[in-house]
Amino acid sequence: MSYELFYWPDIQGRGEFVRLALEDAGADYDDVARSDKGMAHMMTILESKTATRPPFAPPFLRHGRRTIAQVANILLYLGPRLGLAPRGQADRQFAHQLQLTVTDLVAEAHDTHHPVAGGLYYEDQKPEAKRRAKDFRENRMPKYLGYFERVLAANPKGDAWLVGADASYADLSLFQVVEGLRYAFPKAMRNREKHWPLVVALHDRVAERPRIAAYLPSPRRLPFSEEGIFRRYGELDG
Amino acid sequence: MSYELFYWPDIQGRGEFVRLALEDAGADYDDVARSDKGMAHMMTILESKTATRPPFAPPFLRHGRRTIAQVANILLYLGPRLGLAPRGQADRQFAHQLQLTVTDLVAEAHDTHHPVAGGLYYEDQKPEAKRRAKDFRENRMPKYLGYFERVLAANPKGDAWLVGADASYADLSLFQVVEGLRYAFPKAMRNREKHWPLVVALHDRVAERPRIAAYLPSPRRLPFSEEGIFRRYGELDG
Repeated sequence: MSYELFYWPDIQGRGEFVRLALEDAGADYDDVARSDKGMAHMMTILESKTATRPPFAPPFLRHGRRTIAQVANILLYLGPRLGLAPRGQADRQFAHQLQLTVTDLVAEAHDTHHPVAGGLYYEDQKPEAKRRAKDFRENRMPKYLGYFERVLAANPKGDAWLVGADASYADLSLFQVVEGLRYAFPKAMRNREKHWPLVVALHDRVAERPRIAAYLPSPRRLPFSEEGIFRRYGELDG
Repeated sequence: MSYELFYWPDIQGRGEFVRLALEDAGADYDDVARSDKGMAHMMTILESKTATRPPFAPPFLRHGRRTIAQVANILLYLGPRLGLAPRGQADRQFAHQLQLTVTDLVAEAHDTHHPVAGGLYYEDQKPEAKRRAKDFRENRMPKYLGYFERVLAANPKGDAWLVGADASYADLSLFQVVEGLRYAFPKAMRNREKHWPLVVALHDRVAERPRIAAYLPSPRRLPFSEEGIFRRYGELDG
């Protein structure tokens, strides 16, 4: 039974964390809103007044009769099915915990360019964005990446992956975080990356996984842009 | 085996969502950082460079050999153990999805008074806070509460609880959201609450649960204040 992923068709955004897992596993999936009439289909589901278990926002996944929203929740469901979750319960719970920490980081990265309101343009909140981005670059980004570095260093099964001895969806997500931060804050990342060698090595390890290496240059991988979560505005890079 | 909850000792904050579940279940738990030397104990765990599975931030829970962080992840673990999770897998996944939506709302409520940086004082970001709070009151709060209203209305088991026919931790969390929003935005909530009658009725239903009714006036329930997530600043209430 194939998976249906619903997400905004023109950006990587939060949908990319799910896409990376599906791609790495070679799963059979349909990126619905990017196909003909797919966007209308997605909006019908989002705006339904009667659907039980409605999603609050994209991305959401359909699999058989299930509709599942929230990135970390989708990955909690997909992980074991795709062979991308650790085996034991405690390890699974920790992988999920790390994914929720990625979720927090992603929301903060978004708010660097939208600190006032997601419904306003960036141009309407530039002074506020400049202040928030400075705090993000100097305090939050190092705190988060330093945390993941510490998790890798303390993994009793070695420092190659975040949880246990094998890759999980959390590693794919951390790869995407590094990609996104390098896109949005090239200068800040160039200056600071050396402090997180294990995170950078994990990023490179993910990029070399055969299905990821095939996916990244494919048309299925949308480019970063100034419409997504990670945006490159020179004035926010210090 | 009793639970150990670790959270900042002077605020309800994010810890309160866990406390409410433990209290409603009549669980045996220790609110560690509020006891003698508890704060030092919590900081030792947070600052350990060698702990495997370290928490990124409070709250976190210790239960036997497990240390679990992130509110929604803690409740995912506690729910079934406290009799506060739905029975079926799909219902459990949906309760967790709703909890993650509460998590998003809580982060946005926090950012109404800290839109620039959590490390700065409110006084250092008042103009930005005023703009963000306006958007929160007029757009985000109604979007979230309207969503929960819709979930209640569409529940095939009746509109008393969010998932299935019985209360779950997600209901306790929605109660706390209403409490917090009423504290922070009394005027905005007074003007708008009538649009979400099922959410308000759920709030009242939770408040009447015997153990919650006993907990709320007890010294274990910390008061709301201008140190927590939900803060009352008149200028942010429109």
